Amino acid sequence: MAEGSRKQLRSFVEVGRDSHFPIQNLPFGVFRRRGATGPPRPAVAIGDFALDLAAVSDAGLFDGPLLAGSPCFRQETLNMFLGMGRPAWKEARATLQRILSADESVLRDNEALRKKCIVPMSDIEMLLPITVGDYTDFFCSVHHARNCGFIFRGPQTPVNPNWFHLPIGYHGRASSVIISGTDIIRPRGQGHPTGDSQPYFGPSKKLDFELEMAAIVGPGNELGKPIDINDAEEHIFGLMIMNDWSARDIQAWETIPLGPFLGKSFSTTVSPWIVTMDALKPFACDAPKQEPEPLPYLAEKNHVNYDIPLEVWIKPKEQSEPSIVTKSNFKHLYWTLTQQLAHQTVNGCNLRPGDMFATGTLSGPEPESFGCLLELTWSGQKEIPVGNSTRKFLEDGDEVILTACCKGEDYNVGFGTCTGKVLPALP
Amino acid sequence: MAEGSRKQLRSFVEVGRDSHFPIQNLPFGVFRRRGATGPPRPAVAIGDFALDLAAVSDAGLFDGPLLAGSPCFRQETLNMFLGMGRPAWKEARATLQRILSADESVLRDNEALRKKCIVPMSDIEMLLPITVGDYTDFFCSVHHARNCGFIFRGPQTPVNPNWFHLPIGYHGRASSVIISGTDIIRPRGQGHPTGDSQPYFGPSKKLDFELEMAAIVGPGNELGKPIDINDAEEHIFGLMIMNDWSARDIQAWETIPLGPFLGKSFSTTVSPWIVTMDALKPFACDAPKQEPEPLPYLAEKNHVNYDIPLEVWIKPKEQSEPSIVTKSNFKHLYWTLTQQLAHQTVNGCNLRPGDMFATGTLSGPEPESFGCLLELTWSGQKEIPVGNSTRKFLEDGDEVILTACCKGEDYNVGFGTCTGKVLPALP
Ligand SMILES: [Ca+2]
Ligand SMILES: [Ca+2]
Ligand SMILES: [Mg+2]
Ligand SMILES: [Mg+2]
Ligand code: NI
Repeated sequence: MAEGSRKQLRSFVEVGRDSHFPIQNLPFGVFRRRGATGPPRPAVAIGDFALDLAAVSDAGLFDGPLLAGSPCFRQETLNMFLGMGRPAWKEARATLQRILSADESVLRDNEALRKKCIVPMSDIEMLLPITVGDYTDFFCSVHHARNCGFIFRGPQTPVNPNWFHLPIGYHGRASSVIISGTDIIRPRGQGHPTGDSQPYFGPSKKLDFELEMAAIVGPGNELGKPIDINDAEEHIFGLMIMNDWSARDIQAWETIPLGPFLGKSFSTTVSPWIVTMDALKPFACDAPKQEPEPLPYLAEKNHVNYDIPLEVWIKPKEQSEPSIVTKSNFKHLYWTLTQQLAHQTVNGCNLRPGDMFATGTLSGPEPESFGCLLELTWSGQKEIPVGNSTRKFLEDGDEVILTACCKGEDYNVGFGTCTGKVLPALP
Repeated sequence: MAEGSRKQLRSFVEVGRDSHFPIQNLPFGVFRRRGATGPPRPAVAIGDFALDLAAVSDAGLFDGPLLAGSPCFRQETLNMFLGMGRPAWKEARATLQRILSADESVLRDNEALRKKCIVPMSDIEMLLPITVGDYTDFFCSVHHARNCGFIFRGPQTPVNPNWFHLPIGYHGRASSVIISGTDIIRPRGQGHPTGDSQPYFGPSKKLDFELEMAAIVGPGNELGKPIDINDAEEHIFGLMIMNDWSARDIQAWETIPLGPFLGKSFSTTVSPWIVTMDALKPFACDAPKQEPEPLPYLAEKNHVNYDIPLEVWIKPKEQSEPSIVTKSNFKHLYWTLTQQLAHQTVNGCNLRPGDMFATGTLSGPEPESFGCLLELTWSGQKEIPVGNSTRKFLEDGDEVILTACCKGEDYNVGFGTCTGKVLPALP
């Protein structure tokens, strides 16, 4: 039985029981050895190590029909590999699980090759693994939509009528998508306090995080040829954690009538490892029932979410430890990833390998599962505890740490962390 | 005197008096010879010809300090050249005006070299000349803002209060930016007729054009380092005509609260030739006085627009000739290109060479100068004549032709045309 054999799979690389990266996961990233001068190299994570896929490729270990001789792992990003589609992804996963398994000698018993291929994570830095062509941000948690509507428009009709008919989304900024660990300079911009007062210019006073996950597109589609909802999963490679940093004061003032712009575009942080949909399969769960029923182009045979527990921690500069501020779960998503993808192409819009689309803030139903400070502090109306301090919005020196990890019986499939520290605004 | 000598400049290539592309213009594009298999090649337009810049480069005619030996014209797009900045652009322009001038023998008297370098436009097809990293669409014509506000929100407060304080904009879709001449498949999507009725799915019933111009970014900026308003012009290479095709029914239903998405992302057409800001300089004019005064980060020493007459023509399938439907001008723009660029980076957002930002619909003050059918037909409340027919919105088979041309005393600086024909929706 496939499930049984998956559980027994074990690597010769030592992997701690709490590790996010057992042999069942094998998320893809791109790294550079510290101090190295060569181009970045694709990798998968295994325990506390990165398996260098350029080195594996050079050693001729990708011997399947699609990957043997392919230059896809000698690229500086994963885009070429993404464009090859699920058959290539499955072949790569099978090869990598085999050569990393405790039963297979090719790497295990060859010290020289092992040293070439397996690098301690402490010796590398991770880079943005994809060239992002377009980045879309959806708005697909009903709890987040309801809370935002309540805060901005009042309790009468918190959720706009279109929300239950289509996955609302907008285009974000691709150039400022950055890798976990990059500092965030507090943005400056225009705000507008109230009523008839004049707008001011200065550092954002309402800097926030947004707990999201971003899906990475594999094969794209031609302009004018929508992707069918029941084919959509073939176009999704995997997921990353994403922090859609948001300056609420800038956003509030600029947003009518064309939506968020500079309140979001200063930085969007993603975690370094893309966890594949194949690794997430054991954690699939039913998605929420949709009422009203979606229009036929959004009605899908396989309507699933994934049970991915999510957490956000904040470490203020003067505290030695981070404190947890929210606990949510990916499974609350109302519109599924496949619905988001199909919707985005239904007008003929073309996707390209490496495009990124994010879920929107992943708030859960309870107040302690809200996915941003706007909701957690009800737009600064109350403070939340952060260790021995409190917060309404982010302060300079705060480090924000997002993490996500699926807990199986015998192993985790985790995402690592997505972090960023807030630096003071330019003078 | 510079102005005097510019007027006398004349090419040995015959250029008709009405041509958009005299030696004073020299707009940049990328082409392929029909039937050729090699990579696309950069060019400038001269009369009815394209001057092949890879061939000019191969012949060693770029002999200035920045371009001699540079691979920038052996690329498939202009992005590398764009990133080199104004000194390189000026050097290229000076070299090209010299080798094309009637007084210079190097090409004029060398038939073999001339044949290599100068190609009739009838023998080539034009390609998208840039890889667009991010595409931003602004909303900077006050007449367009006022008309849209009036149509959607009524006559009380047609323009939202933020409008006069900042250039409103949003991110568009980069993947579906296409070159003039590409057919437009009528998009399908959700619409919502009125009140309590259910949304429907189908071909857009309100397909529209938007008459815009798009600015192309040269050197970018590092994330976190805004571009100063008085330095902004150094980052703008040139302008193209742009048609921001819009499905008004899809747009109206999806737009709250995050702005336009699928109502726009199905296609955005640009003209093939990028007219440089250097070529447009003689047509600079005062930009409208701004009241209230902009915040200091938007207050510029050199507050200029350009006097660029614009026209839109429609050719219905069953008519043999196109008919003009609007006449506008770039000079009506309220927020200048430099204000748009500086605003977009003030939060630290990074621009990259080849990024594109568009003005928004360029409506003038009079009803016959409105820049889209939404305004011209007041959202379909009346019909406008198109030859011996009428239109509320675009019909299948309609070809929409945008054109722009600065008229000097002795020469034009024109943009050619930006065209697209509407094909029926998918079944
Ligand atoms: Ca978001
Ligand atoms: Ca527009
Ligand atoms: Mg963001
Ligand atoms: Mg468009
Ligand atoms: Ni984009």
